[in-house]
Amino acid sequence: MAEEEMSTGMMGAESLVRTLVAGGVDTCFANPGTSEMHFVSALDRVPEMRCVLCLFEGVATGAADGYARMTGRPAATLLHLGPGLANGLSNLHNAKRAQSAVVNVIGDHATGHRQLDAPLTSDIEGAARPFSDWVRTSPNADAVATDGAAAIAAARSLNGRVASLILPADTAWTPLSPARSADTRDGVAPVPAITPPAKADPDRIAAAVEVLRRDEATVIFLTGEAVRDPLIDVAGRIAAATGADLMTPTQCPVISRGAGRPEVTRLPYPIAQAVEALSGYRNVLLLGAKAPVSFFAYPGRPGELVPPGVNVQKICGPEDDIADTLTALCNALGANEVEPARAPLDVPAQPSGEITPESLGPAIAAAIPDNAIVIDESLTSGRSFMGPTSTARPHDWVLGTGGSIGYALPNAIGAAIACPDRKVICLESDGSGMYMPQALWTMAREKLPILIVIFANRKYQILRAEMTNVGAQIGPSAASLLDIDQPTIDWTGLARSLSVEAEQVTDLDALNRALAHGVALDAPYLVEVVL
Amino acid sequence: MAEEEMSTGMMGAESLVRTLVAGGVDTCFANPGTSEMHFVSALDRVPEMRCVLCLFEGVATGAADGYARMTGRPAATLLHLGPGLANGLSNLHNAKRAQSAVVNVIGDHATGHRQLDAPLTSDIEGAARPFSDWVRTSPNADAVATDGAAAIAAARSLNGRVASLILPADTAWTPLSPARSADTRDGVAPVPAITPPAKADPDRIAAAVEVLRRDEATVIFLTGEAVRDPLIDVAGRIAAATGADLMTPTQCPVISRGAGRPEVTRLPYPIAQAVEALSGYRNVLLLGAKAPVSFFAYPGRPGELVPPGVNVQKICGPEDDIADTLTALCNALGANEVEPARAPLDVPAQPSGEITPESLGPAIAAAIPDNAIVIDESLTSGRSFMGPTSTARPHDWVLGTGGSIGYALPNAIGAAIACPDRKVICLESDGSGMYMPQALWTMAREKLPILIVIFANRKYQILRAEMTNVGAQIGPSAASLLDIDQPTIDWTGLARSLSVEAEQVTDLDALNRALAHGVALDAPYLVEVVL
Repeated sequence: MAEEEMSTGMMGAESLVRTLVAGGVDTCFANPGTSEMHFVSALDRVPEMRCVLCLFEGVATGAADGYARMTGRPAATLLHLGPGLANGLSNLHNAKRAQSAVVNVIGDHATGHRQLDAPLTSDIEGAARPFSDWVRTSPNADAVATDGAAAIAAARSLNGRVASLILPADTAWTPLSPARSADTRDGVAPVPAITPPAKADPDRIAAAVEVLRRDEATVIFLTGEAVRDPLIDVAGRIAAATGADLMTPTQCPVISRGAGRPEVTRLPYPIAQAVEALSGYRNVLLLGAKAPVSFFAYPGRPGELVPPGVNVQKICGPEDDIADTLTALCNALGANEVEPARAPLDVPAQPSGEITPESLGPAIAAAIPDNAIVIDESLTSGRSFMGPTSTARPHDWVLGTGGSIGYALPNAIGAAIACPDRKVICLESDGSGMYMPQALWTMAREKLPILIVIFANRKYQILRAEMTNVGAQIGPSAASLLDIDQPTIDWTGLARSLSVEAEQVTDLDALNRALAHGVALDAPYLVEVVL
Repeated sequence: MAEEEMSTGMMGAESLVRTLVAGGVDTCFANPGTSEMHFVSALDRVPEMRCVLCLFEGVATGAADGYARMTGRPAATLLHLGPGLANGLSNLHNAKRAQSAVVNVIGDHATGHRQLDAPLTSDIEGAARPFSDWVRTSPNADAVATDGAAAIAAARSLNGRVASLILPADTAWTPLSPARSADTRDGVAPVPAITPPAKADPDRIAAAVEVLRRDEATVIFLTGEAVRDPLIDVAGRIAAATGADLMTPTQCPVISRGAGRPEVTRLPYPIAQAVEALSGYRNVLLLGAKAPVSFFAYPGRPGELVPPGVNVQKICGPEDDIADTLTALCNALGANEVEPARAPLDVPAQPSGEITPESLGPAIAAAIPDNAIVIDESLTSGRSFMGPTSTARPHDWVLGTGGSIGYALPNAIGAAIACPDRKVICLESDGSGMYMPQALWTMAREKLPILIVIFANRKYQILRAEMTNVGAQIGPSAASLLDIDQPTIDWTGLARSLSVEAEQVTDLDALNRALAHGVALDAPYLVEVVL
């Protein structure tokens, strides 16, 4: 009777919130509307759920991506009908490409209301599907717990996926019925078995060992856990034992780098440099990564970046068990006792004088504190950052994965909430930063220790290069669409308007001081670097 | 030979731009990326196309919506692959609900590149479909002109629709072949026949006349052209001749109002007020509008707002010829010579003293100049605006149509570019304004004479009411998700950071002065009204 009484009156929304918390999803990035009000109301009865308000949905989905990259666990998002979901889709695209586990909760009209075609009605499942790995609409309040648990399992399957659960308003506001299934008696459904990634394939391991034992130039192209603590050490042992190089895709979700870490090269973005980086290898072994392709197609340039005739061989794919495969490979090579070649601690001296493209990398490298999370959307400004930072204090480097710009500021929120004891440094270009400036408000609200560095070149610099790459001419009209200096964006004013402290710097000494101040501050701080 | 030579070397992208211009689409709201560079490059060879740069795609689509509402003609948008489209979808939802004609041009990877699944690859057609009436991917350069012309026709069909044309990069950069069809010899395809809206249905007209001649309380529920200059006058004649009332849906794209215009009531948003407004009628005649339904479903409240037993009768639907139907109805009633009851010119006196909810309407009404375009996303703050403005100087009043917030600032851009001689006043709530603040930058860049009034109540006030409506409790956690005052947004600082002049006002005298200053200024101006 006590159990019966406890659950009397519990509505679907509370049942979902309790199921999420019980399933390990205790953080929700939210921009709610009317159809989500019962979910919001339930938060007062389930204090274990931390709900972070975002002023735009792309901030919420980008934050969930950043959270998943740091924890390996899904956060929830709370989005309002089709248009609210739509505003979050571009960062879900990035999350999906990062294999980040995300549980989207998307409110919909009450089941009976859909047929009336009220103004906000749209095909939510249709909108979600291109950017989700799993989509389901909950049919009634009793099913919500089970569907929520299924969404968690879907998100945690196969190394991480995007799950979108659509919650019609009546399923949220209807009390659970006594007739509901026994395993959801207290409103909480257990998370079903996840689909695990496939374990190491012995044949592929053996074939890789055979290649690695040849006296041939070989690169292991790897991503995911294989380039992060602690497994990057295993990758380093394999490299040291075999002489193979380690390389990540350009769009690698997270790389553990800096002093003490084995060196892993990142494939450069510019196609000529990428082709150059891959030339000279006889073998490319794929470990969790797909064979590298150019980001865009260019007339007369290759799409597949590995030259013809090179042996490309898969050890495991993105949805396979990367940890198990890497460990099995190391075992098969007998490399467990081999010491990796580790980067020394060699923090560059702070540069001085005028800001140049080459001086930015050392300035950043000098500023990175121990165990920082660096979120990099600096694009053209950041192309020289990897070298100087490779011997900086140990840190994680987070990269854009899906090419949808505007991911970095939201991602930084998720990283900071996931790792409250770590400094987050967000390297942002001005063009990309203007996609989701609303993120600054949530950073201020939550007092997140994020240092934002805006590289203000005041143009879509990357597009100028791309126009040349695709063979298009830049006349005055075209040029006017590539520059964003008319008018100039005052990033410090923008930040302050959202309660984020900020300063602008125009030389390296001021930059060094600003970075040090921002690193020390236990709050968000924005530095606009005028280039 | 000359013709042959002229077209030699013309690429698909230029062919598309020329076709758009020839088809009357001479304005493009753009946020381009690599795959759109040839389109951008072609702008220098086709100066008739005006291209307006937006820093976020939702600004581009919202501007296209505003442009179409004012001109009845489509503008183009230029968007970058799936995620770029995704960022524009929420305002396309509004455009679709407004029956705005829009031609989206969405770049995609080159045809052969898609199979490589590069990071930016996504299902663009799938993403476009829920928010478009027409979707097509162009297969090759020769087809681009024909497909572009078809997109224009689709957008202009049935009173206005959203057409999405996907342009793989190679179709843009490939020269037209000599083998292309004869009707695209100069790279320009003629616009095919549009699907016209159905003309007046004589049976429905006769049935409506029969109802209107009864001595019964009747309301004509109408939208589209029927409530805009010049046809609103015809609606006024019908009302005067028959005693019927005129009412628009809550989400009406544009209403011509103020001095000299026949009175048309707007159905209130709050469900109790809406039910009240419709009570007492024996007949509801639908002219271009669908039968009114509640915006959201609420437990125990009606979804259909017309009380049971009332005669609801369709004269024509949203995709029928509203102008022809209205004119035919007026003819059938012999009402062409009847003088409508026109609103007098009765500009309220400027209110003075403290700002109250009731004083805002008169202050706005006093400030509206002749022939202004008022774009209203003031939501809760604006619920008292319709009364005082009904006798203001003549103006057009633009409303949210799809319920996706953040439409007003982008819409104002489109309206200002469509109507360079008219003042645009954008009434914006703070919560909604934060969805697309990037619009301010484009306003400054294009020096658009837009007066933005931000009603800063520093909360999602509408949601507080909605929580009560749906029967959800507001505890401290829930309340924290409904307030946006921690931290406070400094709208004047935000505007200035994007080069828009701004001031904050806290009393009515300052508000009056600020509104007058903004109306007189030939540039954007933002007034933050602290409530």
